[in-house]
Amino acid sequence: MKKISLLGATGSIGIQTLDVIESHPEHFKLLAMSFGSNIKTGVDIISKFKPAFVAVKDKETYEKLKFEFSSNDIKFGYGDNALIEAAVYDRVDCLVNAVVGSVGLVPTLRAIENNITIAIANKETLVTAGHLVTEHAAKYNVKLLPVDSEHSAIFQCLQGENEKTIDRLIVTASGGSFRDKKREELHEVTVEQALNHPNWSMGAKITIDSATMMNKGLEVIEAHWLFNIPYEKIDVLLHKESIIHSLVEFQDRSIKAQLGTPDMRGPIQYALTYPDRLPLEKSKRLELWEFGKLHFEKADFNRYKCLQFAYDSGKIGGTMPTVLNAANEEAVASFLKGKIKFLQIEECIERAMDKHESIAHPGLEQIQEVDQLTRNFVQTLIS
Amino acid sequence: MKKISLLGATGSIGIQTLDVIESHPEHFKLLAMSFGSNIKTGVDIISKFKPAFVAVKDKETYEKLKFEFSSNDIKFGYGDNALIEAAVYDRVDCLVNAVVGSVGLVPTLRAIENNITIAIANKETLVTAGHLVTEHAAKYNVKLLPVDSEHSAIFQCLQGENEKTIDRLIVTASGGSFRDKKREELHEVTVEQALNHPNWSMGAKITIDSATMMNKGLEVIEAHWLFNIPYEKIDVLLHKESIIHSLVEFQDRSIKAQLGTPDMRGPIQYALTYPDRLPLEKSKRLELWEFGKLHFEKADFNRYKCLQFAYDSGKIGGTMPTVLNAANEEAVASFLKGKIKFLQIEECIERAMDKHESIAHPGLEQIQEVDQLTRNFVQTLIS
Repeated sequence: MKKISLLGATGSIGIQTLDVIESHPEHFKLLAMSFGSNIKTGVDIISKFKPAFVAVKDKETYEKLKFEFSSNDIKFGYGDNALIEAAVYDRVDCLVNAVVGSVGLVPTLRAIENNITIAIANKETLVTAGHLVTEHAAKYNVKLLPVDSEHSAIFQCLQGENEKTIDRLIVTASGGSFRDKKREELHEVTVEQALNHPNWSMGAKITIDSATMMNKGLEVIEAHWLFNIPYEKIDVLLHKESIIHSLVEFQDRSIKAQLGTPDMRGPIQYALTYPDRLPLEKSKRLELWEFGKLHFEKADFNRYKCLQFAYDSGKIGGTMPTVLNAANEEAVASFLKGKIKFLQIEECIERAMDKHESIAHPGLEQIQEVDQLTRNFVQTLIS
Repeated sequence: MKKISLLGATGSIGIQTLDVIESHPEHFKLLAMSFGSNIKTGVDIISKFKPAFVAVKDKETYEKLKFEFSSNDIKFGYGDNALIEAAVYDRVDCLVNAVVGSVGLVPTLRAIENNITIAIANKETLVTAGHLVTEHAAKYNVKLLPVDSEHSAIFQCLQGENEKTIDRLIVTASGGSFRDKKREELHEVTVEQALNHPNWSMGAKITIDSATMMNKGLEVIEAHWLFNIPYEKIDVLLHKESIIHSLVEFQDRSIKAQLGTPDMRGPIQYALTYPDRLPLEKSKRLELWEFGKLHFEKADFNRYKCLQFAYDSGKIGGTMPTVLNAANEEAVASFLKGKIKFLQIEECIERAMDKHESIAHPGLEQIQEVDQLTRNFVQTLIS
């Protein structure tokens, strides 16, 4: 029985993680969880899974839950410390970190210190502080298991292989909501259009990141840290069906790929069952002949500027990926609120990166400071 | 340094194995070899690689070689016993069995008894006596490493996986020389047309087997034995580009695939370097965007009757796969000599299988007897 803490339980990855936990009650037990502001869904989850500890964002939600579950033996907490408490909660075997944004970083570091295996769906944790997280994981000999479908694919392909024989990682990209539009058609696209992803049903932030290809850029940086591969050996390949989730090329030119229907429960469950596998409930078999064709295209770095920014920031290193990520988070939030246009997202990021002098080997406090300064700077651009 | 015995050195797989051995002189040494009748190529190989022992088919070739290499310290032998002597030659670490036809069986069994790892490119060995070979390999705890690109692909996908979690093997098929022809167009096709394979340059027998899809049928039987998977869990998928070499589906619906350019040196080298990898000399990187599209189609068992016969014979078991294989070998040889038409190959196989009552758990002598009787029967059909 694997005891699990789930941060970000009401989000898209959170809900699907709960679906996996529920389908294998003999293997998994939800012991602790957190969520932000979606109290209705949060209450449903608590009622159903009866975790021992629940962390929420603010005191108001905390008070409401205390009242709602006063007759139950469930502990509640709120704020940053409660998030950490949930991450390292007593006797947890695995932390599924599915919060969105860089708020996921400190709980990950604390869980590592407590020798808790990390199933990482919070890509900003690796993007902003990849060096800290991976050094920490190595120091405490803790496994970082990817949950993103692309990184799970690479991770699955690497099983049984000597990492020294890797020649290249090939991260596939669907191209997002605007993959069939030319760059000049992107000036006037709406939030609604951007949220209409052709293959995956995901949260709003990641769907916009898909449309700008920043999502793929963040994944390239994440892959760099998770698999310890230089950026020169990580490629992005456009593959609109999202059937091949990613590939690994070895030095003998053999390529291994992992494929599946676009169902995030697959990679989530693999992280929970690793290194073994269990049947995936209510899932459809992938039959390639039903597709007839799979399509591949070279990624165009002029068409997708955010992808170029991500490679640039990764190669510069230090605090530059933090700037990339913070500027993107602020800009996407503003786009979703209708404050800026779609192509202004990349403008914000470019200006924030241009302005920043990267600090090498930053500590946690420096990262947090750069993160905040970048957000403030992007706000001045927007207002 | 891995010391290698290579049976079938002058054939297509043999030559490519020598290319791999030559490209990594610090890792591989050819210690023993055999070939059939291609004395010119044989002499070139012996001059270049200077193996300690060489087995040939007949006394005449043996005498010529003795004379040619009288000043060298090379031992020669001929006939079936010499083939076995080459297979188990002193201090050999790995036997690459690349002979064509069921003549490869006994050397494989003897090499297993001598605890020599088998790199198996001789599919008839597993087709005609899969139960004997795999039981023998298990008894002596000897590894059977596949060399066929399809089985190598499956084997590579299975590294680091628990075999109990396999849900399905998916063997890909190019469709062979006549994949774009309808069944009714196959009546008058010529030997020359049949030998014109669209993707792979291989020997004549296997190229015809590709055109009839018997090659894929034999591979299904081979996969059954190599990976201990029931026929119900082995699928064939038409994929005309031969880029995805085969796939494995696990119980969580995750599919792993191995891809590469059609270069047999890849799987050959993997068998020699397993479980590690080495760079593959003079090889081209596979870029999927250069293809743009990969195509997939369901295999049609009415269009490709030999594929149906192979599944049928495998499921019946016992001596039936021996009949399938022997009838096919005789019929293909007759087709290549212009004695029968293309579609008569499958007629010969069907009639031989209809006539045969399968013997369960046959020993080596029974297999050899059934093999010979089947060949005689097919000869009566042809003449």
